Amino acid sequence: MTVTMTIDCMGGDHGPSVTVPAAVRFVQFNDDVELVLVGQEAAIAAQLSKLRADGHPRLSVVNATEVVAMDDSVETALRKKKDSSMRVALNLVKEARAQACISAGNTGALMAVSRYVLKTLPGIERPAIATVLPNQLGGYTTVLDLGANVDCEASHLLQFAEMGHALVAAVDGKERPSIGLLNIGEEVIKGNDVIKQAGELLRASTLNFYGNVEGNDIYKGTTDIVVCDGFVGNVALKTSEGLAQMLGDMIKEEFSRAWWTKLMAIFAMPVLNRFKHRVDHRRYNGAALLGLRALVIKSHGSADAFAFEWAIKRGYDAVRNGVLDRLSRAMDENQTQLQETKPMPAIPAL
Amino acid sequence: MTVTMTIDCMGGDHGPSVTVPAAVRFVQFNDDVELVLVGQEAAIAAQLSKLRADGHPRLSVVNATEVVAMDDSVETALRKKKDSSMRVALNLVKEARAQACISAGNTGALMAVSRYVLKTLPGIERPAIATVLPNQLGGYTTVLDLGANVDCEASHLLQFAEMGHALVAAVDGKERPSIGLLNIGEEVIKGNDVIKQAGELLRASTLNFYGNVEGNDIYKGTTDIVVCDGFVGNVALKTSEGLAQMLGDMIKEEFSRAWWTKLMAIFAMPVLNRFKHRVDHRRYNGAALLGLRALVIKSHGSADAFAFEWAIKRGYDAVRNGVLDRLSRAMDENQTQLQETKPMPAIPAL
Repeated sequence: MTVTMTIDCMGGDHGPSVTVPAAVRFVQFNDDVELVLVGQEAAIAAQLSKLRADGHPRLSVVNATEVVAMDDSVETALRKKKDSSMRVALNLVKEARAQACISAGNTGALMAVSRYVLKTLPGIERPAIATVLPNQLGGYTTVLDLGANVDCEASHLLQFAEMGHALVAAVDGKERPSIGLLNIGEEVIKGNDVIKQAGELLRASTLNFYGNVEGNDIYKGTTDIVVCDGFVGNVALKTSEGLAQMLGDMIKEEFSRAWWTKLMAIFAMPVLNRFKHRVDHRRYNGAALLGLRALVIKSHGSADAFAFEWAIKRGYDAVRNGVLDRLSRAMDENQTQLQETKPMPAIPAL
Repeated sequence: MTVTMTIDCMGGDHGPSVTVPAAVRFVQFNDDVELVLVGQEAAIAAQLSKLRADGHPRLSVVNATEVVAMDDSVETALRKKKDSSMRVALNLVKEARAQACISAGNTGALMAVSRYVLKTLPGIERPAIATVLPNQLGGYTTVLDLGANVDCEASHLLQFAEMGHALVAAVDGKERPSIGLLNIGEEVIKGNDVIKQAGELLRASTLNFYGNVEGNDIYKGTTDIVVCDGFVGNVALKTSEGLAQMLGDMIKEEFSRAWWTKLMAIFAMPVLNRFKHRVDHRRYNGAALLGLRALVIKSHGSADAFAFEWAIKRGYDAVRNGVLDRLSRAMDENQTQLQETKPMPAIPAL
């Protein structure tokens, strides 16, 4: 099976200078992949020729005249830039000419345009953004939502759990991945009303619900999946980025303080490099927009080519593992269950 | 001026074996401090004699027969354990026999008993928990609330900002510390309704409001103070703890992988130790319960003696810098302003 994906080449802080090299490398290393490069033809062609990849049989270019800027409002992206690389890339997926779209464009715009173009799966009220973070067990924890939904009801959190379940079950082959509800304590009585209700819904569901988890459990790997509302998830993610950045900078600073610390850095280099590789956040780039009728992967806006390649890989894995099918099936089953358990309509009093 | 503080010696995961050595060290290094050790007399005496500190002129012991366990409910702590070390230590502060209380006891119980015994300052609806986290500027960022309030209205977030302002102005001598509102984007339109309203209140206030900040800004040091609701703050803090723990463990693992990596660790030791010292979370131990009629400092439950000493130091700094006075004055001014700007009562229709 060939996996065909569209690349929004103009998205992100760096545009084609990052997205095109990543795409070229990815097709070179994966024989069963075709990539459609969407964006301003001339800019893409220039990159391709620089990389001597023009005419690659599994790379094609589709022109799109407009670009959604990183600070464009949802309104602008949706109503004013109908020929943006983002929109055209999503349209190709909608027309079934590709199975997934990868974009480093601005999150709000990407979510809005994706919803508009692709629509949500039946039974999904709110799509969510899911990503993976490394954990102490040497694996990773899937966390959602990371910012698509700032105000959630308990039923939304349940849906996020169901979507996370479908994603992890498909991609990692774990039939019953465990699910934690992000809270401020393990006890059932902790948290606000929405969280407590979500806990009840999750306990009553057929999912493998572990219970409440706390922020540190994301990195401990206590559960395969951690569910939270988009506000909390976004803060947890950004806080982690900030802390990792600070610690990384401090290590560098300490090792470059004087000639003798620089000497030590040389000695310690192989070990430091292994450590750096293990925690390299670029390897965790690529968040899935879940709940749409097609697969969309959002890359970090500041991604470099190596990081963007990981986002492409996430799309590739999702397509190959049938994430969308699995998600649709899970939602279908839910709908059926809901209908089956629906109470008999009361006979109206005459 | 002598600073007198009570120590809840039974609180925390380790009780007197941590709290008493920390207290002894602290009085030995600070001539202007008197500490009242509260808890089970025999247990405290045993520790004191082990440290040859029995009879120290600036250490006294007050007996309390009960202990609030780390998993006791608020109900139990409040209604059933009236002779707990926590309660007795707070009572002594209430009776003005000490100026602050330091406890590593469970957060929920400590907040509830503190509120019950000490009461809140006039004008404060909700006390908040504030702590400091290191930032890239080499200083630290004060963050509140960290878990006292899981459901906040905009006016509560404004009060947290006012309390944070009073704390930082007093302790750090910054007259107009900058305040950031934790959000999921910098733009004014981001976030949920409560956050948007809080932003409006902060912009209209006399505080030095910077605007919205994101999770990474805590560690960047973008503002002196970051304000958020207790749910979000707690998740940010715990997530940071989890990430720091994971990274620390990974560095250790990499350096102890083989004989040659162990050798490298020896070479790199001085640098790694400096780094470890800089990011040592124990130096940031001690969160202030703000908004009460007296000072209460909450230490991490798992603190060791070194960390607990830092919590005592935080209490000491707060007392010496007149944090409580500053807070009361700020709240008084607010009250006056509120009264002055109150609209004329409407003449009731007859």
